[in-house]
Amino acid sequence: MIIVLRPHATAEQIEQVVREVTELGYQPSPITGVTQTIVAAIGDERTQANLESLTALPQVESVLRVQKRYKLVSRESHPGDTEIPVDGLRIGGGNFSLMAGPCSVESRAQLLETARAVKALGATVLRGGAYKPRTSPYEFQGLGPDGLKLLAEAREETGLKIITEVLSERDVARVAGVADILQIGARNAQNFQLLIEAARSGKPILLKRGMSERIEEWLLGAEYILAHGNPNVFLCERGIRTFETWTRNTLDLAAVAIAKKESHLPVIVDPSQGCGRADLVIALCCGAIAVGADGLLIEVHPKPAEAMSDGHQQVDFDLFAKLRAAITPFLEAAKKSVSPGEAGPEGCV
Amino acid sequence: MIIVLRPHATAEQIEQVVREVTELGYQPSPITGVTQTIVAAIGDERTQANLESLTALPQVESVLRVQKRYKLVSRESHPGDTEIPVDGLRIGGGNFSLMAGPCSVESRAQLLETARAVKALGATVLRGGAYKPRTSPYEFQGLGPDGLKLLAEAREETGLKIITEVLSERDVARVAGVADILQIGARNAQNFQLLIEAARSGKPILLKRGMSERIEEWLLGAEYILAHGNPNVFLCERGIRTFETWTRNTLDLAAVAIAKKESHLPVIVDPSQGCGRADLVIALCCGAIAVGADGLLIEVHPKPAEAMSDGHQQVDFDLFAKLRAAITPFLEAAKKSVSPGEAGPEGCV
Amino acid sequence: MIIVLRPHATAEQIEQVVREVTELGYQPSPITGVTQTIVAAIGDERTQANLESLTALPQVESVLRVQKRYKLVSRESHPGDTEIPVDGLRIGGGNFSLMAGPCSVESRAQLLETARAVKALGATVLRGGAYKPRTSPYEFQGLGPDGLKLLAEAREETGLKIITEVLSERDVARVAGVADILQIGARNAQNFQLLIEAARSGKPILLKRGMSERIEEWLLGAEYILAHGNPNVFLCERGIRTFETWTRNTLDLAAVAIAKKESHLPVIVDPSQGCGRADLVIALCCGAIAVGADGLLIEVHPKPAEAMSDGHQQVDFDLFAKLRAAITPFLEAAKKSVSPGEAGPEGCV
Amino acid sequence: MIIVLRPHATAEQIEQVVREVTELGYQPSPITGVTQTIVAAIGDERTQANLESLTALPQVESVLRVQKRYKLVSRESHPGDTEIPVDGLRIGGGNFSLMAGPCSVESRAQLLETARAVKALGATVLRGGAYKPRTSPYEFQGLGPDGLKLLAEAREETGLKIITEVLSERDVARVAGVADILQIGARNAQNFQLLIEAARSGKPILLKRGMSERIEEWLLGAEYILAHGNPNVFLCERGIRTFETWTRNTLDLAAVAIAKKESHLPVIVDPSQGCGRADLVIALCCGAIAVGADGLLIEVHPKPAEAMSDGHQQVDFDLFAKLRAAITPFLEAAKKSVSPGEAGPEGCV
Repeated sequence: MIIVLRPHATAEQIEQVVREVTELGYQPSPITGVTQTIVAAIGDERTQANLESLTALPQVESVLRVQKRYKLVSRESHPGDTEIPVDGLRIGGGNFSLMAGPCSVESRAQLLETARAVKALGATVLRGGAYKPRTSPYEFQGLGPDGLKLLAEAREETGLKIITEVLSERDVARVAGVADILQIGARNAQNFQLLIEAARSGKPILLKRGMSERIEEWLLGAEYILAHGNPNVFLCERGIRTFETWTRNTLDLAAVAIAKKESHLPVIVDPSQGCGRADLVIALCCGAIAVGADGLLIEVHPKPAEAMSDGHQQVDFDLFAKLRAAITPFLEAAKKSVSPGEAGPEGCV
Repeated sequence: MIIVLRPHATAEQIEQVVREVTELGYQPSPITGVTQTIVAAIGDERTQANLESLTALPQVESVLRVQKRYKLVSRESHPGDTEIPVDGLRIGGGNFSLMAGPCSVESRAQLLETARAVKALGATVLRGGAYKPRTSPYEFQGLGPDGLKLLAEAREETGLKIITEVLSERDVARVAGVADILQIGARNAQNFQLLIEAARSGKPILLKRGMSERIEEWLLGAEYILAHGNPNVFLCERGIRTFETWTRNTLDLAAVAIAKKESHLPVIVDPSQGCGRADLVIALCCGAIAVGADGLLIEVHPKPAEAMSDGHQQVDFDLFAKLRAAITPFLEAAKKSVSPGEAGPEGCV
Repeated sequence: MIIVLRPHATAEQIEQVVREVTELGYQPSPITGVTQTIVAAIGDERTQANLESLTALPQVESVLRVQKRYKLVSRESHPGDTEIPVDGLRIGGGNFSLMAGPCSVESRAQLLETARAVKALGATVLRGGAYKPRTSPYEFQGLGPDGLKLLAEAREETGLKIITEVLSERDVARVAGVADILQIGARNAQNFQLLIEAARSGKPILLKRGMSERIEEWLLGAEYILAHGNPNVFLCERGIRTFETWTRNTLDLAAVAIAKKESHLPVIVDPSQGCGRADLVIALCCGAIAVGADGLLIEVHPKPAEAMSDGHQQVDFDLFAKLRAAITPFLEAAKKSVSPGEAGPEGCV
Repeated sequence: MIIVLRPHATAEQIEQVVREVTELGYQPSPITGVTQTIVAAIGDERTQANLESLTALPQVESVLRVQKRYKLVSRESHPGDTEIPVDGLRIGGGNFSLMAGPCSVESRAQLLETARAVKALGATVLRGGAYKPRTSPYEFQGLGPDGLKLLAEAREETGLKIITEVLSERDVARVAGVADILQIGARNAQNFQLLIEAARSGKPILLKRGMSERIEEWLLGAEYILAHGNPNVFLCERGIRTFETWTRNTLDLAAVAIAKKESHLPVIVDPSQGCGRADLVIALCCGAIAVGADGLLIEVHPKPAEAMSDGHQQVDFDLFAKLRAAITPFLEAAKKSVSPGEAGPEGCV
């Protein structure tokens, strides 16, 4: 780290900083500039004390980090792309995955009908919320265990893998009993106890970026999971909160490109949450592919106008079919294909 | 709710909206305007279906809410100020509370020394984190149960009430065994399972506003707690995340004034997290009092430069004494006094 | 507009709102709901009084707009895509345009060398700042009139059209004497006097989105130009300011898709400003094409490390050649080609 | 500045950075750390080249600034508080100023009535917009020159000083002919040509913070004015744009405290724009005083519900009287009094 001292810091004050830096285990290297002195503190910023507390000293103006804060998720620790095995399916590492399904599991008919529809168009993973984090306590909170049963039935019938959100540490085992991928939602992106508990389940985890998480913090969230022994993490960009009101969130596609550069983990894009508007989903899917995403997580519902949650952002089957056709040339441009390992004779690319 | 139709919607399309609105349990009232038609849907927006899903219909441009989404936390349901009993102490309702202590509990000496110092200056509640939510898995995560023991000891010795954060549903009972007030941090502001579990403990809860939570969402978070049977909630403004980089967060003092208007719950301000800089804490404490806060939650540390977390925003004892003196005239201007119910002969205002 | 009254508004208070609405030229239509009354005010919201001032009345909770605030820029007024003639070149309406060149015009050699390089790769418009809006008064402010002369020379030699920023109403005539397209930068996006003056020049105008402009405001900025008699406007998305610090701005590609839906004007994307990092420019160019952009505005410099402004976000010639190759398949996927009207035998798609 | 090299940079690559730094006029000082090398570049960052362009080199990870970018506005260049003379009145430096009046000048009666009302309550400066920057071209744009005449008349009659916004370089002389203080609005906060032109008028200038300006950028805007020979600048905090929708802007009172620390210039707070709601203005005025503001700029209108602009945020005379009474104890707490230099026998504190 670099400790920037205020102009006119006295020799004694500089000496105090050098002493503190040394005591905290770093090797100090002071440099006198034109207006002020800096002290470079040589050491391992990740494991040693955070020197930012030194700004509590009156002569310290600021403390600048030099090293990256994450390690296991970084390209430096693993230069190639990670491919994650999901019960026989492989996601990432060149395979492009379509994950699709309703926002909430609402009924047997709704889920199975959707599962068949998305499978017919190439999806290999079925999404659907059994436990729903809702802003108001008076809104539909999901079917809970009954929703999980329906998801299990849909997997049984269609062979699709299941991704579903887990909201509570206490539900991890139960959800992991059905899900092939555990989803951690944006509101829990820094619920570290849930991350750790999910990591311990051994299941692959899709970690959504928090609503106002910096990219670094998102990667550090994934680092929590890897550091607790689970290497199978999908990063999921789902839009960040900004001042714009015509979209629910601002989908940050540059973050996808950065995550691909900084990390070896697969990056999935959720355009449905990302904009909150069904009419933009196709364009954003194409955009996501173009910037390098490894897959898409799309909300699909048989009749969005009657959905029990987020109908405004779910696409119906017709629109999903248009979406499927629309993305094909962009996948080709990106030299990717939809889950080739799974494509049977009715393969739909 | 109001359903705004697109210009040139056909009579048949309008009829479809009217039909859907009726089926979803509302009474429709269409109005033809100059450029387009709207359909007012009369009903209880809180308990009936959310009509926003109707924007999935091509003829619907937008859906506007009319009613407020919260009820129990609103002034309408409880016009007076709520005063919350905390083991003999009363917070809110005219009593102004100083809650102070270190960011993290680090050691017996550090905690007890701080407890004595803040008590001598009028604090009635001791803060101190035993479980710490840290951005990186490599940072100090708190002393855990040992930290709780030290907090219990500090209460025993000083008589100060204890506020400390709970990060995990599984720790609620354990933390509630020591704490007089459970703190829910900004990262868990929409971890609804934790809110519900904390509500069930029966302990008063201080609910921090999420990093990018709208005021309405913050109030709805509190509504979760009240709706699960616990009426004792403190709202805590601690800054929101914006583009500004010279402060860690942007303290939103207008939100304090709004929360006081909209809700009957006490509102506490955390200036330490709110700006992330010890040198601004005094000014923001004065500002918080002036806009109507019912109390302050302040980070105090014997030696901030050596703190194990967030040293840059903790004030030392000297600065806390200056703070105590600085806020006195503003408390008088606001016609408030520090915890009169507790002030003994050595009362320090 | 819709005036939402507070719960428990009296009959007299409702009557007062009805009266005010009538006096302000609207036809009132009150509707009594379950918890509160609303008054729909029928009229032309664009030309009549803004009823938002009615929230000054104690019984009014909020005022909701129904109609769109812009007209000339809307798809409703002009359903097809607008193609803008630029001195013989046609931009928009199916033609994809590459606009490229240095951030600042620095020297004759720098500009001409860049002009030749970008032309050879298919650019039809040369960008380059002669007047630079710089955050600090001590930073390089551009070559001014000498920069304009160099731009004129580059056009003369290469046949490229010129786009350059105008900062001052007083410079509009002078800049319009050289530029084929006037650029209004993000900092001046709501400098309405400059917009009006630029509109009057008759030259096509590229209007960048302001740093924190909502999409609606950006479209209303363009509406100013059209309302002042100039129909030739390019909308340019260049990133918005958010809390993220690893990119200079957050490129909002959903805004491109929305602008294409709402407006008939061509939409150009500036990925260089959009992220502030040369290493992300290629990915974001591909993304911009995929979401429907009509062109790209890219910063190219012979030696970015020695640039007098924004070297970190300028690509060098090698990277620009890679970019040119990388976007080709995405242009094909989008069924677009680079400026076919201009492509000679050396056409580079 | 400090150039951070990527891990594994070769000796040759480090040497290249050292060479570039030297050529750009800085003295390089490389330091080898545990994971990577940094090069401290010693020199004057304000006047020498901006080394950030070096991130264009593949081996450079980032470039960190050490020095402050502003000089004339800083406390270091002028440790005491600046008091600005405004035609006999002195603002700043211990004098607290009330600036009040309508958002827009609408009519002779409206303006004079308001001027008398605010003067009677201690205001010494009358605000009122003759030129209005409006988001839509169809909204009321102000009375222009006729508005200026009315302002001149109000000054004549009441002796109040006049502050009014200037939108156009071309209007600076005309507006300066009437105004005692030129206001630069948030939308023009980085319209540097307007800042320079206004600076040259010699009149005191109130510079509003831009909607998404960082504090550093706001100070650099003021630096432009001082660097062009005009030392009389008021900084004005008026809220920043965030995701919150219940307030028009988020008033950043920490920025007031920072501006007072970093700069010697007076800081004025505009609570009306700052929240966009008349019902919060009193609380925010008290808050502004408590954090150290030198004055307030408040929108007052005889009948806000009928205002031609921004009625929702203007207070009427009754509310202004309540405001005047409400702030008195906070001014006393802050040891400030309203414009003592001007108080006659009818002095209203």
